[in-house]
Amino acid sequence: MPKAWTLAARPQGNPKPGDFALIDVDTGPLAPGQVRVANRWLSVDPYMRGRMNDVKSYVPPFAIGEPMQGGAVGEVVESADPAFAAGDMVLHMGGWRDEAVLPAAELQKLPALPIDPQAFLGQFGMPGMTAYWGLLDVAAAREGDTVFVSAAAGAVGSTVVQIAKAEGMTVIGSAGGADKCEWVRSLGADAVIDYKSCGSLPRALGAAAPGGIDVYFDNVGGDHLDAALAVARANARFAICGMIDVYNDGKATELRFLARLIGMRVRMQGFIVSDYMARGAEFYRDMGGWLAEGKLRREETVHDGLAAMPEAFMGLFTGGNTGKMLVRV
Amino acid sequence: MPKAWTLAARPQGNPKPGDFALIDVDTGPLAPGQVRVANRWLSVDPYMRGRMNDVKSYVPPFAIGEPMQGGAVGEVVESADPAFAAGDMVLHMGGWRDEAVLPAAELQKLPALPIDPQAFLGQFGMPGMTAYWGLLDVAAAREGDTVFVSAAAGAVGSTVVQIAKAEGMTVIGSAGGADKCEWVRSLGADAVIDYKSCGSLPRALGAAAPGGIDVYFDNVGGDHLDAALAVARANARFAICGMIDVYNDGKATELRFLARLIGMRVRMQGFIVSDYMARGAEFYRDMGGWLAEGKLRREETVHDGLAAMPEAFMGLFTGGNTGKMLVRV
Repeated sequence: MPKAWTLAARPQGNPKPGDFALIDVDTGPLAPGQVRVANRWLSVDPYMRGRMNDVKSYVPPFAIGEPMQGGAVGEVVESADPAFAAGDMVLHMGGWRDEAVLPAAELQKLPALPIDPQAFLGQFGMPGMTAYWGLLDVAAAREGDTVFVSAAAGAVGSTVVQIAKAEGMTVIGSAGGADKCEWVRSLGADAVIDYKSCGSLPRALGAAAPGGIDVYFDNVGGDHLDAALAVARANARFAICGMIDVYNDGKATELRFLARLIGMRVRMQGFIVSDYMARGAEFYRDMGGWLAEGKLRREETVHDGLAAMPEAFMGLFTGGNTGKMLVRV
Repeated sequence: MPKAWTLAARPQGNPKPGDFALIDVDTGPLAPGQVRVANRWLSVDPYMRGRMNDVKSYVPPFAIGEPMQGGAVGEVVESADPAFAAGDMVLHMGGWRDEAVLPAAELQKLPALPIDPQAFLGQFGMPGMTAYWGLLDVAAAREGDTVFVSAAAGAVGSTVVQIAKAEGMTVIGSAGGADKCEWVRSLGADAVIDYKSCGSLPRALGAAAPGGIDVYFDNVGGDHLDAALAVARANARFAICGMIDVYNDGKATELRFLARLIGMRVRMQGFIVSDYMARGAEFYRDMGGWLAEGKLRREETVHDGLAAMPEAFMGLFTGGNTGKMLVRV
């Protein structure tokens, strides 16, 4: 019997194993237009934490007792729709389970790029699109800009670093711990701040960017956002992508440098990558080009087996991943 | 001997009378190109607090022992420049003093509008321009938008209310105390929140704007900004104009609803009105039109005599003014 992860209870603060339960799902025979997919790779992403709360947001909350959703790559094993045939590799949102039965309209064949299929859950998927659109469109970063990106060793942040370097920017990344920092440096970052050992973050950032920053790509919120405000140059643009800092505990953000918004005419713009879904062709074109030029590298942190999903997800909030966090089914 | 106010000491926290000293200024005979102005009206504005700190900002700090600067309207009494003659009424930045000697290039003749000269320090001056550009350009507010403005009884806020109504917007203002709230209501605001007695500001704002807000014009920061984040509608625009909340104490801003920036794609944009100085003609054209249509009213809180300058200035931070705070010399 296919299995899927459901929420057993809405997490209070940090998610714990007991918040999740593995259930049997009787997917049954296919109706016309449906496709059966054997999932090979499952994604865990920080935004999923928001869906675990019973709060109206830009995506509806997960229902208790129902299979959760999330990005997945799998192989078609049975099709009742002419657009798909057994053996097709597809991308879809029926993750958190080993087998998905979905209408054909909710499946996408993997674009023809010379990369591993699981990359379409990371650098060539939603996290990569987040990096690309956030940096180039929301923050309008351009050649010559000085860019600061937090969580620079993560799936989104590491792609921001590489796109920024490919486009001729100066890049400062932050990450936690020597190994992650070394990896960010190896991606081409001009400076890397280990936020776990740097002491005052505004001071460390000021030292790394003596002339200030033009762009901040925020994956973290909190003290990183405050440090970015502290060193923002005139007309700086902040792309506000994630605030992993507050996803679990809902605590208030304390900003000491917020008034610099005014003097420096800073623009802070929140965004959601799904608003850019219709522009996939531009993304694949540019990313494919940088890939061909050898300008893109990626790292994966892989957990094995459907049973490991909760552990992989919880690891996102404890710094457990370098690059994209994935589960291989 | 002409007199001018100087900083005797940089204020720590709230400014106090001993931070200011009245000094004699020997303005001497005019050099070619200079003009002598007898000041009639002096402006006090919240932004001046920033210049009292020894901190690099968008305007340089006031120097200890030197006359301070600020907006002023006066009458030319002697001119060594062909562009000005005795009797001309002029606008300039040589305030905080009873007589100013300035190069002709730093004087502006009052525009030909049927209003009192001191209005060019308020609704038809820098505060009015701040309201106009902040609302219509920075926040891109349009007919049909729901607009929240804090400090709505102040010189900037009261003009925001009236421009927004003239342009067909729904307006919610906040002010402190029944008298100010009544005045804001009389300007046409659709709802007014007395922040001193409303209890939870996010709740009060949510009740006043059940569908959320499209625009927030921020004169205050702190809890008002947080409440605006709490009720921001998708694609809301915040014009960040002032944070009187932190000018004196430099405390951190606590934001509980900052993560809504992301889900609601909020844009927060800091701005400085001086960036718009070259576009004065547009401002005077539209404001003159609304004035002629009877859509603009203003209130002044007037202190008399140069000696009253520090008292007037300090009153800005204790809710001492309705409308524009002025000193009549």
